[in-house]
Amino acid sequence: MPSDVLARLTEQLGDRVDTSPASLDAARADKSGFAADTAPLAVVHAASVADVQAVMRIATDTGTPVVPRGAGTGLAGGANAGGGEIALSLRGMTRILEVRPDDLLAVVEPGILNADLNDALAPHGLWWAPDPASRAISTVGGNIATGAGGLLCAKYGVVRDAVLALDVVLADGRLIHVGHRSVKGVTGLDLTSLFIGSEGTLGVVVGATLKLRRLVPGQSHTIAAVFPQGVRAAAEASAAVTAAGIQPAIMELMDAASLAAVHAMLGLDAPSAGAAQLTVQTDGPAAAAEADAVAEILRSAGGEVAVSHDPAEGERLLRIRRSMHPAIETLGTALIEDVSVPRSALPAMFDEIARVEREYGIVIPTVAHAGDGNLHPNFVFEGDEVPDRIWAAADDLFRAALRLGGTLTGEHGIGLLKRRWLADELGDDQWRLQRDIKGVFDPQGILNPGKVFA
Amino acid sequence: MPSDVLARLTEQLGDRVDTSPASLDAARADKSGFAADTAPLAVVHAASVADVQAVMRIATDTGTPVVPRGAGTGLAGGANAGGGEIALSLRGMTRILEVRPDDLLAVVEPGILNADLNDALAPHGLWWAPDPASRAISTVGGNIATGAGGLLCAKYGVVRDAVLALDVVLADGRLIHVGHRSVKGVTGLDLTSLFIGSEGTLGVVVGATLKLRRLVPGQSHTIAAVFPQGVRAAAEASAAVTAAGIQPAIMELMDAASLAAVHAMLGLDAPSAGAAQLTVQTDGPAAAAEADAVAEILRSAGGEVAVSHDPAEGERLLRIRRSMHPAIETLGTALIEDVSVPRSALPAMFDEIARVEREYGIVIPTVAHAGDGNLHPNFVFEGDEVPDRIWAAADDLFRAALRLGGTLTGEHGIGLLKRRWLADELGDDQWRLQRDIKGVFDPQGILNPGKVFA
Repeated sequence: MPSDVLARLTEQLGDRVDTSPASLDAARADKSGFAADTAPLAVVHAASVADVQAVMRIATDTGTPVVPRGAGTGLAGGANAGGGEIALSLRGMTRILEVRPDDLLAVVEPGILNADLNDALAPHGLWWAPDPASRAISTVGGNIATGAGGLLCAKYGVVRDAVLALDVVLADGRLIHVGHRSVKGVTGLDLTSLFIGSEGTLGVVVGATLKLRRLVPGQSHTIAAVFPQGVRAAAEASAAVTAAGIQPAIMELMDAASLAAVHAMLGLDAPSAGAAQLTVQTDGPAAAAEADAVAEILRSAGGEVAVSHDPAEGERLLRIRRSMHPAIETLGTALIEDVSVPRSALPAMFDEIARVEREYGIVIPTVAHAGDGNLHPNFVFEGDEVPDRIWAAADDLFRAALRLGGTLTGEHGIGLLKRRWLADELGDDQWRLQRDIKGVFDPQGILNPGKVFA
Repeated sequence: MPSDVLARLTEQLGDRVDTSPASLDAARADKSGFAADTAPLAVVHAASVADVQAVMRIATDTGTPVVPRGAGTGLAGGANAGGGEIALSLRGMTRILEVRPDDLLAVVEPGILNADLNDALAPHGLWWAPDPASRAISTVGGNIATGAGGLLCAKYGVVRDAVLALDVVLADGRLIHVGHRSVKGVTGLDLTSLFIGSEGTLGVVVGATLKLRRLVPGQSHTIAAVFPQGVRAAAEASAAVTAAGIQPAIMELMDAASLAAVHAMLGLDAPSAGAAQLTVQTDGPAAAAEADAVAEILRSAGGEVAVSHDPAEGERLLRIRRSMHPAIETLGTALIEDVSVPRSALPAMFDEIARVEREYGIVIPTVAHAGDGNLHPNFVFEGDEVPDRIWAAADDLFRAALRLGGTLTGEHGIGLLKRRWLADELGDDQWRLQRDIKGVFDPQGILNPGKVFA
């Protein structure tokens, strides 16, 4: 049977069917640190919508599971392809089909990198706002599949706010178009939102009509504040900024362990022990006044504050935050978590992290998008396999986030890593409804099976 | 059987079951001008989530259709209840359960009026952005069920951008909670967006966690521009404003027939024949400069422009636009349409309206939310029944909107009125998928049957 599938794929797709050991091996994993035990049947490098349709028709005919895949930068194991599966790569479909400055939209293929798209939009005075930390290496299609977020979300929205319409190939190879090109549109059910964040379980996104913004005029202003009192003081200070009615473009929090790891990696002077840092950026017409107001609030909250009105200096300050992932990798293997809580619960969530650290005898370097309450606690360990003790600590932390009115994942998705907690958050009734909706799209269960819904 | 249903409802819900002729008659209609031929079994005035659950359990046990209903201000016949059906009114559930300025959210019951909610939020310095023209008389739950829009949408978003989570009673009476209180959240499929705009076909919304904004500081500035050349020139001018990168809070367009009707009703001097009007409002930190820039663009486009920096004068200018619905009612019975097109297609859509007017020998007074490309052409006729000739003209106009990359409905919904065009826009494959999703939520077909999916 597998050889029959391969033969049919090769017959129709020729050298776009890749069975080289290196490609098969790469398709087993994403950036979560998780990998399937065995390699997939093949990696198909789709070059067109028709290629995707051909793969899905063969998959439906033969009952073969398909794992859609962008650049493989996911952090939840959502794109990992294993034995008996076809890894369907959209990475080669990178065309920008249309840019409409008058309608503030672009139509793109799913494989284009987020950063490449924004480079192409800049000369038009436009940008696509979602800015995951992976933006230089992750695809727009992957951003859509995970419902990605980033640093700018509190002010400029997440992927779900930035997609108007999608072209989707269904499990049996049919192509549908969902959504609309107009700003408003309520014709029927909102399948566009349903596909966003569905992690390849409902269909294969082969095109996207993106809602663009105009580049924000003027320069941004950056405030860096060190809190010698530690992370709770920094979290309270960030909540005070939000409570004062100021909407920064970026508000990033790093705890002491994160800050130390990044400073060490970048060869900077070590920060004072126990100190946390808040990095805030304002933009738009009121940027300068807002920066001064933020600085005043952070000073009142006990921060040691530096304000920079120089964009280059601002970028240097933000570089410390953006270096978090590589810095953590220097400490060991990392399970990068992604809980999100209401903004007011950020200090309480840091208390919970401190409690879990104490109870399990571990250090959990944590950064947070403080402007929107999204935390990335990093569980660091030795070796390839997440030890049971780390899973127990993560479980404790997830339950704490849910108790505080939060959610399991703010922007990374469920994938393989969090599927066992999904029903805890959704409740059994909603979990079954969601699984039955998947059944409508994928009656054979061939679309990314085992992901999200275990 | 109907008497059995009534007996069971009365047994459990007592005097919240209303069978007075006036109530039954009122429940047959909404503001679309359409009414069911016969009256429903009963109107149940739910006072609690438990009431809604009791109704749905009885409905499921007896196979009785249920039509959820807010204030009955819909324009698509989505809340009309007829023979053998239970009209389930949420209008009495008006409590605000929580307001959190720090988290920019409120938890409310569905029956509260949009304007009442905003009156209650204002002392906190907050507002809920969706502002349908009906906001003084329509409920938040109804706004959610239709995916309502309004005047401010291009800058401040529609309902779908302003809801974090929902409490929903399912067809069989179970209660689920979908969504999250945090800014970000991608746990599982986005059922919150699926319920928004689902027009009572998937479940009954009994609670909503709303995403709030801070009141915009400073005063608004208003620009009124008369275009003697007519509506196409006004449409092109509005497109020029958007193309210049300015985002007004409001940009409303009225054609000559609309303007004349409103002036007559308000007892103002008649506008010059054939003249159209554009009313633009800017707000926020750059409001004054943006108002001047808008005025310059409109002047260059041939408009006779007046700028007001006085909010009271601005409100007076906008009153002309807000008086459109009552003014049209003075002309006859109106079929109020709601197509939406990409902003750049607004002039072409007005050409199509002019063509339909010529070909069918009718006048179609039209207003448009020009900032987002949403048009409300009004088909005016005598009597209660839409004449076939008017339907033929509307059909022609819908197809023109779809050809221009637009959609059947920007903010009113499908309801009864547009269900026969739904598959034309969605395509048969997507139409069937949507209907099958409804089947997951409502296997017996008792939730607002005959609406949206005919």
